[in-house]
Amino acid sequence: MNGKPDYIIPEPTLRRLPRYYNYLKALLNRGREVVSCTHIGKDLELDPPQIRKDLAYTGIRGVPKVGYQVAELIKNIEDFFGWNNIDEAFLVGVGNMGRALIDYKGFSRYGFKIIAAFDNDSEVIGKTFNDVEVLPLSKLTSLCQRMNVHIGVIATPDHAAQEVADMMIAGGIIGIWNFAPAEIRTPEGVIVQNENLAAGLSVLCKKLQMLKQSGKIRQEVRE
Amino acid sequence: MNGKPDYIIPEPTLRRLPRYYNYLKALLNRGREVVSCTHIGKDLELDPPQIRKDLAYTGIRGVPKVGYQVAELIKNIEDFFGWNNIDEAFLVGVGNMGRALIDYKGFSRYGFKIIAAFDNDSEVIGKTFNDVEVLPLSKLTSLCQRMNVHIGVIATPDHAAQEVADMMIAGGIIGIWNFAPAEIRTPEGVIVQNENLAAGLSVLCKKLQMLKQSGKIRQEVRE
Repeated sequence: MNGKPDYIIPEPTLRRLPRYYNYLKALLNRGREVVSCTHIGKDLELDPPQIRKDLAYTGIRGVPKVGYQVAELIKNIEDFFGWNNIDEAFLVGVGNMGRALIDYKGFSRYGFKIIAAFDNDSEVIGKTFNDVEVLPLSKLTSLCQRMNVHIGVIATPDHAAQEVADMMIAGGIIGIWNFAPAEIRTPEGVIVQNENLAAGLSVLCKKLQMLKQSGKIRQEVRE
Repeated sequence: MNGKPDYIIPEPTLRRLPRYYNYLKALLNRGREVVSCTHIGKDLELDPPQIRKDLAYTGIRGVPKVGYQVAELIKNIEDFFGWNNIDEAFLVGVGNMGRALIDYKGFSRYGFKIIAAFDNDSEVIGKTFNDVEVLPLSKLTSLCQRMNVHIGVIATPDHAAQEVADMMIAGGIIGIWNFAPAEIRTPEGVIVQNENLAAGLSVLCKKLQMLKQSGKIRQEVRE
């Protein structure tokens, strides 16, 4: 497998943990102090044993018949991901998707901050969105080096993704979050997280297809 | 679990299949006729046995020591998802994320089409983006009913998501693709696919953390 390290924590667990986190934060805001897997499972429509397993990866154990301290659980998830250390990132491609990512309010709570954006369109270079300045793409590699940035976000069109990834890697970036619908080739020791929008869509459409076939479709409300 | 139907196909498989599909389309364009799981695994950095299992869900079996016909495999994935039948959807929330989804070129190949958008901001109502007209939110429920649309995309801020979901469901929508970072409650027989941007980010950051701890970090290039 190209010498990539093995990750012992399953990706579905890693994807679910932020969802628990958002949910627990809301619980805490409503004044709740203790919560059980059964309760979480009911609210999020997940299996309680799965939740217990997921949460155990953060090092927490619930008290039988009582559950977890909500505040402690939140803290464990934060420590697990290292959200208290800010990860700074550069973003390339200031189209709609890039703008959506720059404006996304939710990242700061995950210790993630886009500190500059890059594009080769003179119409956007020099502009500032949500305090993030757009710089010329030609400066990407040197600024990665100078500012010691290790995470890059690609929000360019398909055809530009590989070239941008190469520029990032030349600047020392080791983690790439790729929103372009293209497979990127990277050397060993660089992690690519592909964010394929069509993946979620495909899951939804397939589930709908299965729901329709099962005959369990809900009565349509026509008032 | 709230009476929701069981889906026998694992979600990670459903998420990987579109990735194989994009990859296979590119292979076919380069004139390749046959491909093996080993070859796919090398290019996509996935385990060949996992790929074999994933592809088997579409009903295809490879020929030992030869592999799959690329064109046949593509066709099987298309049929599996029903991508040849167009799914029409309404989108609510024409901010950056909404605009990014409206402009996303990749959806049509998955048989998915946003046919109208809704917002309550008079600045965008009446405008057209990528041939998609923005209508007042107040018309959402009645248009869902009248046009028999069954899929809704939520790209609103957090606080508006539940209200919009309720309006969609009142109009007969049974599949919701939710980009708002909020948990939505729905009645039985309605499927919600949450697209949590922070999930992918969390996976990336955790992998980076593990990579740094493993000491397998790549030598930084400083030219």
